[in-house]
This record gives sequence, C-alpha cells and structure tokens, in this order.
Amino acid sequence: MGRISKDPELRKKEFIETADKLFREKGFDQTSTSDITDKIGLSHGSLFYYFPSKNELMKAVICNRLDRGFQSLNNIAADPEKNALQKINSIFNLLINPNHTKGTMIDFFQNDSNAALHREFTKRFRELFIPLFSKIFEQGVREGLFKVEYPKETIEYLNYIFENLFENVTSSKDKNEHYRKIKALEIIIAKSLGVSEDKMKLLQY
Amino acid sequence: MGRISKDPELRKKEFIETADKLFREKGFDQTSTSDITDKIGLSHGSLFYYFPSKNELMKAVICNRLDRGFQSLNNIAADPEKNALQKINSIFNLLINPNHTKGTMIDFFQNDSNAALHREFTKRFRELFIPLFSKIFEQGVREGLFKVEYPKETIEYLNYIFENLFENVTSSKDKNEHYRKIKALEIIIAKSLGVSEDKMKLLQY
Repeated sequence: MGRISKDPELRKKEFIETADKLFREKGFDQTSTSDITDKIGLSHGSLFYYFPSKNELMKAVICNRLDRGFQSLNNIAADPEKNALQKINSIFNLLINPNHTKGTMIDFFQNDSNAALHREFTKRFRELFIPLFSKIFEQGVREGLFKVEYPKETIEYLNYIFENLFENVTSSKDKNEHYRKIKALEIIIAKSLGVSEDKMKLLQY
Repeated sequence: MGRISKDPELRKKEFIETADKLFREKGFDQTSTSDITDKIGLSHGSLFYYFPSKNELMKAVICNRLDRGFQSLNNIAADPEKNALQKINSIFNLLINPNHTKGTMIDFFQNDSNAALHREFTKRFRELFIPLFSKIFEQGVREGLFKVEYPKETIEYLNYIFENLFENVTSSKDKNEHYRKIKALEIIIAKSLGVSEDKMKLLQY
C-alpha cells in the first residue's frame, strides 16, 4: 500500500521514465504495458489511471525527452559568458553528438501508425527551438557578429533543417558522409548568419 | 452500359480527377464517396472496385497532383535555353505562386488522422525534388554560376525548407509578411548557391 499512495505527479513521472527506458531497450512495439507496470511493481490497470493509452504514454515520453534535452540547450542560451556564435556552436555540439541521438525514436517515428506522434514531436520541437534560436540570432546581431536581414523568417526556414537533423545526420552510411553532412550544415548556417564558415564548429572532429 | 465498360485506367483517372475537384471545392471530410460516384453517374459500390477506401483514393489524388505539378517543373529543368539560375527562378515562380497553392491539401494534412498521408506526400516530394534540384545544381556549377562545395548534402538540407514552403508561405498574415518570407528564402538559396542575392527572383512582385 505504501507505493499506491505515492504522490500522483511522482507516480506519473515514474511511469514516464520506466516506459522511456523500456522503449529504448526493447522498442515501442515490443514493450507491453504490463512490462512497464511489472517493472514498477504495480497492477496492470494502474497505468491506465494515469494514461488513457500506450500512445498517450509515448506522447508523454516524447515531451519529457524533448523538454529535458531542451533544458541543457536553454542553459547554454542563458550563459552570460558566451557570445552568440559560441552558443550556436555549443548547442549543435550537443544536438548532433552521436551519443545523444541514440535511442528508438527514429525507428518509432518511421512506423506509419506513429505518424501523428511524429508530428506532435515536430510541433513541440518548433515551439521550443524557434524562440531559443531567435534570441541567439538577436544577440548575435546586437554583438555585430551576425548579419541577418530577416531573422524571424530565416530561423523559421533553418528550423525545418534542424528538426530533421537527427534523422539526416544519423542515417550517414560512413564517417565520410557524416563529415560532409556536418560541413554542408556549417556552410548553410554560416552563410545564413553572415558569418565566415571557419567560425562554425558544429561538431568537434 | 456504355460507361461501365470504360477502360479501367481511364475510369480510375476519372475517379481521381472528380475526387480532386470535389475535395478542393467541398473539403475532404465534407465529400462523401457517393458524392463522387453521383457526379460520375455510377453506383456507389463501383468506387471500391478501384480504390479500397476513401483514404486510398486521397493518396492517389495526392500523387496525381504532385506528379502533374512536377511535370511542369521537369519541363523547365529540361529547357536547353535556360541556364541553372533561370531554371531555379522559374521553378520557384511556379512553386510559390499563390494561384498554384490553393486547394484543400494543407487543411487536409493538418488533421491528425491524415498524418500518415502527409508523410506519404513528403516522401514523394523528396523522391521527385531532390534529383531535379541536384541536376540543376550540377548544371549551375558546370556553368560557373553556382559555387556549392557539397551539392548533394546542400540540396538535402534545402529540400526540408522547400517541402514546407506551401504551408509556410501561404500562412502569411498579410502582404508584408509574405514579402519578407520570399526575401528570406531568396537570401538562403542565393547564399547556399554562392550567387548574389539580387539574381534570385523567386517571385515577381
């Protein structure tokens, strides 16, 4: 009974984190809802008290991952010691670092029945990333580092690239393709920001 | 009986074109399958002989629109009188011309239950557009007009912008926002291709 009376918010968090771990380890389809409740040591029905369906639980897992990942980016953006260029470089080092893009999300999204969840992810990504980059762009213009004539529109366009980066960069067949993709990205961002290309170090090689 | 014995391919085409017209006029949800068969003058069941479901019919409508639209772009790309820059400008004049982006496709895709169809559209868009632009980029480099270090990777990135253009540009609140979006797009493309911005005339104002 001690576990049943746990704070609902903490319990919800426990479900999300346990599900996230199992989805990564076994895959979404291969993880049953009872795998999740078993792991926590609760009855099968208890999950549906918090989440109406496994899909809703997955949605919560996606938002949780994005929000948590985003927190680290937000900390970089808020760093008073960094100029706008350093912020962009640090953020991409985190974003496209192969160690951070592991997991089952890409395969999960490829599945046709998860297309709506994929769009949910993209929507949330836009809500988080566009304001973050807008602020850094403005800072760069103020600092005289960036030269962007239409910052709002430019970040909207670039964000279409950013939201597909995980999938694009991680799908590289070999090191050479990966290198070319990073270089091409550095050039597009540098040119869009009016910065010399050699100042962009999106990933340390 | 004359109509019933029509060539199956022609009949299929008739269904697709009638559905396309009705989906545009009334919207996808508001168009029933019997609206379509009534318009052609056939029994309701006849449609399902050609398409297992209304969604499959919509998929055929989407492919048909894309393939038909693409045909005009392909003609531009094959024009021996145009250099690569003229081709890019002509293609975008066609792509983002407000008269060509009307219709119900954007609203249709917004609906959660159509997310898989939206992805189908995006997939087909990539299959058609990436090879088309790759060829024009190569031509531009040969002609000494473009300077692109990583053409394959660059077109992959830019295509993420292109496939969202309908939605992005047509969602402009007013003429000023529309203008800014076109200008920002011209700058991103011009810079990515190493072309002076004033040579990009993606839309005639």
